[in-house]
Amino acid sequence: MAVIVQKYGGTSVADPERMRNVAARVAKTRLAGNDVVVVVSAMGKATDNLMDLARQVSSSPQGREMDMLLTTGERISMSLLCMALHDVGCEAMSFTGSQVGIITDTSHTKAKIIEVKGYRVREALAEGKVAVVAGFQGVSTAKEITTLGRGGSDTTAVALAAALHADVCEIYTDVTGVFSADPRVVPQARKLLQLSFDEMLEMAGAGSKVLALRAVEFARNHNVAIHVRSSFTLDEGTWILGADDERKSKMEDPIISGVVHDVGESKLTLLGVPDRPGVSALLFESLAEANVNVDMIVQNTSINGTTDISFTMPSADVATAVPIVEKVGAEVGAIGVTKNSDIVKLSLVGAGMKSSPGVAAKMFRVLADNGVNIEMISTSTIRISVVVERSKLEVAVRALHTAFDLDSGEDYSSPLPERK
Amino acid sequence: MAVIVQKYGGTSVADPERMRNVAARVAKTRLAGNDVVVVVSAMGKATDNLMDLARQVSSSPQGREMDMLLTTGERISMSLLCMALHDVGCEAMSFTGSQVGIITDTSHTKAKIIEVKGYRVREALAEGKVAVVAGFQGVSTAKEITTLGRGGSDTTAVALAAALHADVCEIYTDVTGVFSADPRVVPQARKLLQLSFDEMLEMAGAGSKVLALRAVEFARNHNVAIHVRSSFTLDEGTWILGADDERKSKMEDPIISGVVHDVGESKLTLLGVPDRPGVSALLFESLAEANVNVDMIVQNTSINGTTDISFTMPSADVATAVPIVEKVGAEVGAIGVTKNSDIVKLSLVGAGMKSSPGVAAKMFRVLADNGVNIEMISTSTIRISVVVERSKLEVAVRALHTAFDLDSGEDYSSPLPERK
Repeated sequence: MAVIVQKYGGTSVADPERMRNVAARVAKTRLAGNDVVVVVSAMGKATDNLMDLARQVSSSPQGREMDMLLTTGERISMSLLCMALHDVGCEAMSFTGSQVGIITDTSHTKAKIIEVKGYRVREALAEGKVAVVAGFQGVSTAKEITTLGRGGSDTTAVALAAALHADVCEIYTDVTGVFSADPRVVPQARKLLQLSFDEMLEMAGAGSKVLALRAVEFARNHNVAIHVRSSFTLDEGTWILGADDERKSKMEDPIISGVVHDVGESKLTLLGVPDRPGVSALLFESLAEANVNVDMIVQNTSINGTTDISFTMPSADVATAVPIVEKVGAEVGAIGVTKNSDIVKLSLVGAGMKSSPGVAAKMFRVLADNGVNIEMISTSTIRISVVVERSKLEVAVRALHTAFDLDSGEDYSSPLPERK
Repeated sequence: MAVIVQKYGGTSVADPERMRNVAARVAKTRLAGNDVVVVVSAMGKATDNLMDLARQVSSSPQGREMDMLLTTGERISMSLLCMALHDVGCEAMSFTGSQVGIITDTSHTKAKIIEVKGYRVREALAEGKVAVVAGFQGVSTAKEITTLGRGGSDTTAVALAAALHADVCEIYTDVTGVFSADPRVVPQARKLLQLSFDEMLEMAGAGSKVLALRAVEFARNHNVAIHVRSSFTLDEGTWILGADDERKSKMEDPIISGVVHDVGESKLTLLGVPDRPGVSALLFESLAEANVNVDMIVQNTSINGTTDISFTMPSADVATAVPIVEKVGAEVGAIGVTKNSDIVKLSLVGAGMKSSPGVAAKMFRVLADNGVNIEMISTSTIRISVVVERSKLEVAVRALHTAFDLDSGEDYSSPLPERK
């Protein structure tokens, strides 16, 4: 008998019919003899609708009230799912983040989990019940209701799986797994059967929307096996596993697992910066204070004592960032600031590239051969990212997908992972 | 400086615009120097919509999950109202029933308040903030979320007013007060300026929908002054006051305050019941066990050793009641059961009738003169109710309103009650 945490996203519980489908799937897992904990998101567009109401009554809603407002979405889902479960003869009990003891810090709208107590969930499981938990929410050390930020339900699920030493955390979503590229851009993209935590982390960081970055970090830190799959099919999805997990394929890691793109970023460049110590520190400290999430940073070699500093950030933060960069630029005697939102970040991710020299060179060659000019480059051990012009997205992603042999054949890790 | 509890019903907070209007009214009360506690209901049809969702996922939703589901409605209202209050520069803080310490028994969907702690509300008031509290909900002695049943937000408001020793509990609704008759039936019906607790209690029991019966009972037991008024005008509404309240008019009580009607009841009659001890006890015990709320009961004098027992109940309970009555009838050897849903209950309510003989006689005469046949009669010290054919509703209510001098002139208690 395994302990299984299942998380269902908003599209999986968008209406009463889908809710009943989820109940049937949960009941089946329970009947197979497993202990089941379910984490639910708000139904469909419920969270967006609540945010819309908030904007209609206030120009600047406070975090505390916003959290109280938004947490109702998951509470509606969890109580309805419990009713649907009872209706199919499966005993279930719903719990808010507070009732489950998901203790967070006091940062409203983006709280971090400090501890998961989980007493009442364990009690419910011991009584043979399915525990249905509201995702995305907790209670702060100051006893206030908090939310974990967008994608927070994934984090709730992984945190509960860690606390309960679950065998797997199943993340149900509206796609069938993690793909070698976005299937809307590359029709021949393949579903990946296995990924390491590091690969998934790089993919999430590079713009893959399938799993929230924080949830993957949490899973890596607590070694929680994740299975990303669709709530609309029974197919196996993508497993995210630690290197020492016995379910992990013993075959060698592929060089490249996938091509990820992100159109949500913009680039700012501070031009003609005097090349002296402390300039970068001043610039990025100022941006950090304003909560601007800087992603890639590139500084060119100094020519004639001045240099250019380019960096990318979420496009939503540009309005905040520009005046800060202009102010710092003026203080340090820079020439000016340029802005470009018409870009896309392309990333190759794969654990195999660690031991395969020449991946970067091949990537740059493929892009050059397809007339794609590279504006910025940044690398990690298992990822290479470049920024290129937005209009080159399709041609670049498809060319890379083909060049790195991702187009055809079965996924490398062909033996299906077996459940214990 | 007074302590004022204001309760806003669903129509008063039905959309963002109305929510902002409520915020403006609350802010004005606060700026006048009062300590203000606001109790809110769910927005417009929110509760009905949630119940509808529940019915779509389950044929028999459990009480615990239903309470979790329904309490989200008030939480949405309270957080939005706090945001709207901040937007007009009025500091406010929202509290769930649980956060406020509204402790109830464990009867899900119809819990009774055991205690109101109110620590956090007092704290918020001491800090100069408006406290916004979710109506209709509490937390049980078993630490589960409970609801107080329909109309429960009125009870929340009155209970908080009692716990905080508030000067007044203002109930904002979509009508301007309590009327001498339903204005849709009697166009010349007048708004009543004052009523005693007992009169309001009889009116609520007789079918007036303006205030929930339980809230009035609570107000009477704890001597909480209620002011029923409209959230859409600034007019004074109707004050419900104890006899010793200094705001109470010193003029003598009028004989009749109003004519109330109720079309929500049906009548059952058990025919030819052997007239021996214990039959009524058996019948009404059986109905009570099935949670049927019996209202009027009439038993005729025994003729030839048998009698008829008639009683009224909410029409919604008829389906439950009929088989019970038939079973008891068979056991005691009754002749049969008849059912009539085509009735209306008419009531005259007035504290003055205690000392005015002949009110009942006059009522029966007026009905007879208008061709209205009386099927049942029941009386209390300050109320006379009769059951008549549904089709006679308009003619009967109008005739009684005129005959008891309710049609014209100012209300008796013409001096407006003054706020301390």
